[in-house]
Formats: sequence, C-alpha cells, structure tokens
Amino acid sequence: MQNFSYDHLYRFTYDMLTKIGCPESDAKIATEVLLSADLRGVDSHGVARLSGYVRLWEKGRINATPNVRVTYETPSTAVVDGDSGLGLVVAPFAMKVAIEKAKNVGTGWVSVKNSNHYGIAGYHAMMALEHDMIGISLTNASPLVSPTFSKERLLGTNPISVAIPANEEPAFVADMATTTAANGKLEILQRKGLDTPTGWVQDRDGNPTTSANGVKDGGALLPLGGDREHGSHKGYALGAIVDIFSAVLSGANYGPWVPPFVAFLDPLPNLVGEGIGHFFGAMRVDAFRPADEFKSHMDNWIRRFRSAEPTPGNEKVLIPGDPERELEAIRRTDGIPLLDPVVKDLTQLGERFGVKF
Amino acid sequence: MQNFSYDHLYRFTYDMLTKIGCPESDAKIATEVLLSADLRGVDSHGVARLSGYVRLWEKGRINATPNVRVTYETPSTAVVDGDSGLGLVVAPFAMKVAIEKAKNVGTGWVSVKNSNHYGIAGYHAMMALEHDMIGISLTNASPLVSPTFSKERLLGTNPISVAIPANEEPAFVADMATTTAANGKLEILQRKGLDTPTGWVQDRDGNPTTSANGVKDGGALLPLGGDREHGSHKGYALGAIVDIFSAVLSGANYGPWVPPFVAFLDPLPNLVGEGIGHFFGAMRVDAFRPADEFKSHMDNWIRRFRSAEPTPGNEKVLIPGDPERELEAIRRTDGIPLLDPVVKDLTQLGERFGVKF
Repeated sequence: MQNFSYDHLYRFTYDMLTKIGCPESDAKIATEVLLSADLRGVDSHGVARLSGYVRLWEKGRINATPNVRVTYETPSTAVVDGDSGLGLVVAPFAMKVAIEKAKNVGTGWVSVKNSNHYGIAGYHAMMALEHDMIGISLTNASPLVSPTFSKERLLGTNPISVAIPANEEPAFVADMATTTAANGKLEILQRKGLDTPTGWVQDRDGNPTTSANGVKDGGALLPLGGDREHGSHKGYALGAIVDIFSAVLSGANYGPWVPPFVAFLDPLPNLVGEGIGHFFGAMRVDAFRPADEFKSHMDNWIRRFRSAEPTPGNEKVLIPGDPERELEAIRRTDGIPLLDPVVKDLTQLGERFGVKF
Repeated sequence: MQNFSYDHLYRFTYDMLTKIGCPESDAKIATEVLLSADLRGVDSHGVARLSGYVRLWEKGRINATPNVRVTYETPSTAVVDGDSGLGLVVAPFAMKVAIEKAKNVGTGWVSVKNSNHYGIAGYHAMMALEHDMIGISLTNASPLVSPTFSKERLLGTNPISVAIPANEEPAFVADMATTTAANGKLEILQRKGLDTPTGWVQDRDGNPTTSANGVKDGGALLPLGGDREHGSHKGYALGAIVDIFSAVLSGANYGPWVPPFVAFLDPLPNLVGEGIGHFFGAMRVDAFRPADEFKSHMDNWIRRFRSAEPTPGNEKVLIPGDPERELEAIRRTDGIPLLDPVVKDLTQLGERFGVKF
C-alpha cells in the first residue's frame, strides 16, 4: 500500500485518456469522475479501473471520440445516445440535460443507451446540488447478481444514488448497490482470506455460501436482503427497476444481455439493445416549495437523525454520505492509498503508452 | 377465519364511509383503494383498518369532506394539500394530477402534505398503467423503524411502489416496505406464538431480538438488510429518501414527527409540518421511446426472468406483482378471508353506526 496525491493521480489519468484519443474536455471530466471514487473511498470504481477502460478501448468497445447526443425528447424527458463513449463522459452530459430540463419545467429525466461503465453513481447525482436540485443517478451493469430463487445471474449490482441539498448541513447523499454487498467488498475479503457474512453470495449451484470466491467460482452476488426470509425479493425488485429505467426505457441492453465490463469476456450474441444504460433525474426543490424553506427543513431532518440515541456499542447515527465526505477530506490532504497490484498495473499501463506513473 | 365476497365488503365499507360523511364519489374511491389491499393479500392494509380510520375521524384527525387541492405547481410538478382527508381519497387525486402533467410534458411529480394513511402504495402506482405510463408511489408513515445504529424509532415502514406496463405479459408491480419485514408479518407470527427470523426487529434497548412482540414492547422494526453487515444502511437510506420526497418536499411531517395512525396516540407537540406526506410520479413511456417498442421489450424482460433456472428447492423465479395478482384472481372468486377478531371488530363498528356487517 502506498499513498498518492490527488494531483499525481489526476495528471496520470488525464494523460492516459488523452493518449487513447479523448478530447481534452472529455479527458478532464472523465478523470474527475473516476478520481471522485478514490476520494470517496469507493476504491473499486476509481483509478484501479483505468486499465480496464483502456483494454475495452483497445478491443474497439469504447469510442474515445463519441458523438454523444440527445436522440429524443419531451419538455421533461430525453434519451441520450452515448455513441459507445466512456460512461465517465456520457453520464455527466446526460445529467446536464436533466438539469437544463428541470430549470425549464421543474424536473428532468434522461435515460441513456449505448454507454459504458460510468464510475460512481454518486458523482452524477451530486451534480444537481449546486443548482438547488435533488439529483438521481441509476445504472445497470454486467450480470453478477441472481434474483431471488434464480440460479442464473441476471442483474448487475445496479446502484441507486440520490443527492438532496441542505442549507448549513452537508448534503444527504445515498449511493448504494442494490445487493447486500458490492463486489469490491468481496475482493477485500478475498485478499484477507476471510469468509463473507451470510446473505452476500450464492454458489454456482444456487446454494448459499460464505466463500468470498463464490462469485469468481461461478456463483452470484445476492440482492439486498440476502434471502427471501430477509427480504431479498425487495432488493431484486430494486435492481430490476434500475435495469428497466436505465435500459428498457432507453434502448440499451438489459438483464443478462448487459455487456461485461471486462475486455476478456465478449458480449452475448443477439443483443437486445445498444451498450449499457443509465437513468438520471433532476428535481428543482423550488418546483415544490421555496428552496430556503426546503433546505432549512433538511437541516432539521439531518440534525434530528444525527442526534438520535445510538444503539449499544455504536457512537452515533450516520446520515447517508457522511462516511464518504469525511474520507474525502482526509484523502485530499493525506493522499489516496493504492494497493501494490494496482500500482504495478498502472505502472505497466503507463509504460505501454509512454506515460510515466 | 371466514370468507366474505368482495361485494359484501365493498357495500359495508362504502356504507360506513358515507355514514361518517364522505361524499359518494370519495366513499367509492376510498372503498376501492382499501379493498384492493384485501384482494392483493396485504391484509394489514385493507378492511381490517376501517375502524382505525373511523376512530381517527371521531378524534377530528380525519376530515370526511376535505377540500383537496393543488397549492403550488410547475409544468411537471405540484404540491397537493390533502386538507386532512382520508389518504385513500387524497392519493388518487394526487396521482391523477401527476398523470395529467405527464400527458402534457412527459412526466408528472406530485408531493402531498396534510394527508393520512393511503392504503397500499401499489394501487396508486398502478393507476398509471392504463395510460401507458410508469407509476411511482411513496408514502411516509408513523415512526416504527430505527435507522442503522439508532435506538430511537425515526422512520415509518415507508413503502416504495413502482408499476411498469408490459404488452402481453401482466405489468411489473413492485410494492414493498423499506424494512426487512412489514408490521403485518409480525402480527401473523404473534398470533402463532412464533419468533421472527434475525434482522427483523430490535428490542427497546436497541439490541437485536427475535421476539415477534419486540416492536409492541417498545423496540423497532429494522430497515431492509437488518444490520450494518447485511446492508441495513441501504434500507435506512431508502426509507429516508421516501420520507424526504413525501414530506420535506411537500411540507408534511417527517421522521419522528409523523402523526401515529392509531387514534389512542396523540401527535407530538411542535409538529414540523401538516399531516403525513406522499409522493407520486408518472412517466409516459412514449416520452422515451414508442410505447409498443417499450412494452414488447418489457415482455421479453419478464419472460427471460420468469424462465430463469431456479435455485434448488424453488419452483420458479417470480416477477414483482406475480403473487399479488394470482391471489387477487383467487379472492375475487372465492372471497376474502377475514380473521375472527376482524369480523368482530367490523360487526361492532357497524352496530355503532347502524350499518349491518
């Protein structure tokens, strides 16, 4: 493990992206989105993924110079075609469209097709905050999750992010996979040689397992809830809603047809749509009540929850977004820790393209 | 246990509601909403609650002749003031506003204040289906749920319903509390003298318990996930989002201030808003792509998931809404089973008001 400054990682990522042909403005926003994951502690979605994106570009599955555009719209909705671009570029474009529509008619809702992995969901939702809007960001993803009672993997970890502005308090920012645990947590346990808790994973035969290698070995992540008795049908329904809003509305691939993120796995034949899908929403809070009124009630909401009496052994009740914001403050000062295999991977990536890590 | 025909329960409920002064059209819609819960198997939200609504009316907390109205709007949004009416009446009014806005600008979003319990979330979401729209229905509710790490009850079971139209297949209809299990399931276990699974309930000291009386005894329901290790912070975040969309956007009471449904508990002093809150959304599918295209892809989605290979010991993968729809078909024919205490309660209610059960 070694710490790197934000600026160091920014420069490397930006240089790599321009090296594969991204226009400067695209490289800039993509770098920002990617590194926001590292800052906020979602290490599996940050710079550790850079070489994965590059390999997809090498396979011709990511277009470094896409013509991202609105292909259909009404006053409050749009469909965006990502033209196989980096999701890191396509998603902010689409979220801006949602924000513009919200300025005009109160809310904006954009479904996206023909995109790729878009980094952390929270970045895009949080774009709404500075406009005094609530931001919503959903995406589907490569199938690693089995619905309740299914042996087959049919859904991605399909995250939901909702960002809600407050006044004096920091914003409420939920950003969560619709599974009990995201894949990144399995990788941490694998490295430590530890088992998972119950309800995270099933094995290739569809039986519950606590092996951290369960998904690698052909099993699946489980929807939030874990099993039927603990409400996994609800996690499954949430993941399904994310899939349908992101892909059936836009014309992207859904369910088991979502193309894999890893370049060594090919997309299925007979795809049902184009690329992967996202869904974004922006709601002006003053389309409901005066913004200052709304935001001062959010302060009150946040303070009441944060000051609730904690359960034995716990220090305090957290507000969604608290841990990530606190970590970001630390990492902006102390740097971002990268595991040795990630450092090696980035060094080799740089060497292949003549960019010093 | 005794079975009653839909028509029998319809007549009794309608007569009772007109008896307390509801206008005929209000009594009709309220009866339909209430009984849709009994038909769909959400027995805790159906006719078993009728005497609870009446007691709230007797306390002056429900207005039988409300002036339900839009108090603020933009092309895609509105705030509705329920004027302390039955949620069973206020919610369909607000959902219709959302649908009209969607006809005009693609989507409609309505936040509601000054309302009461609105029956099952799914009824209102499903109103969108006949218009080829996706329907969304959220509500906050009396605080029975402790956020992750909280000893205090700060949230309701705050359900999320999303209804999505298909073509030849029946619609996708998710309707779920954001807790591991809803309160109705605890009542079933209480009657049988059984314990709950882990992750459903904590006791009054904030420790995990499997007592089905845990909530009655001053404990709390737990957010979907159950504990931190199993993702309860996600269920907590979902319940919080429902609370904020329903009440902070509209000006209703939120969090621990939501007035209790039971008439023997008074609302807190120093309320932060008016009544309880709901949130509704309607999205025209053809605001994104042609409706027939969307709906035939939904058929394909549903068929692919329904035909997935099941896990050992399970028959098939279900689509959200399948169990409720199948039960509704049975109950429309065979009648609706009511427990003896419910029959007794309704009989006594009728006697008090001169309506024969």
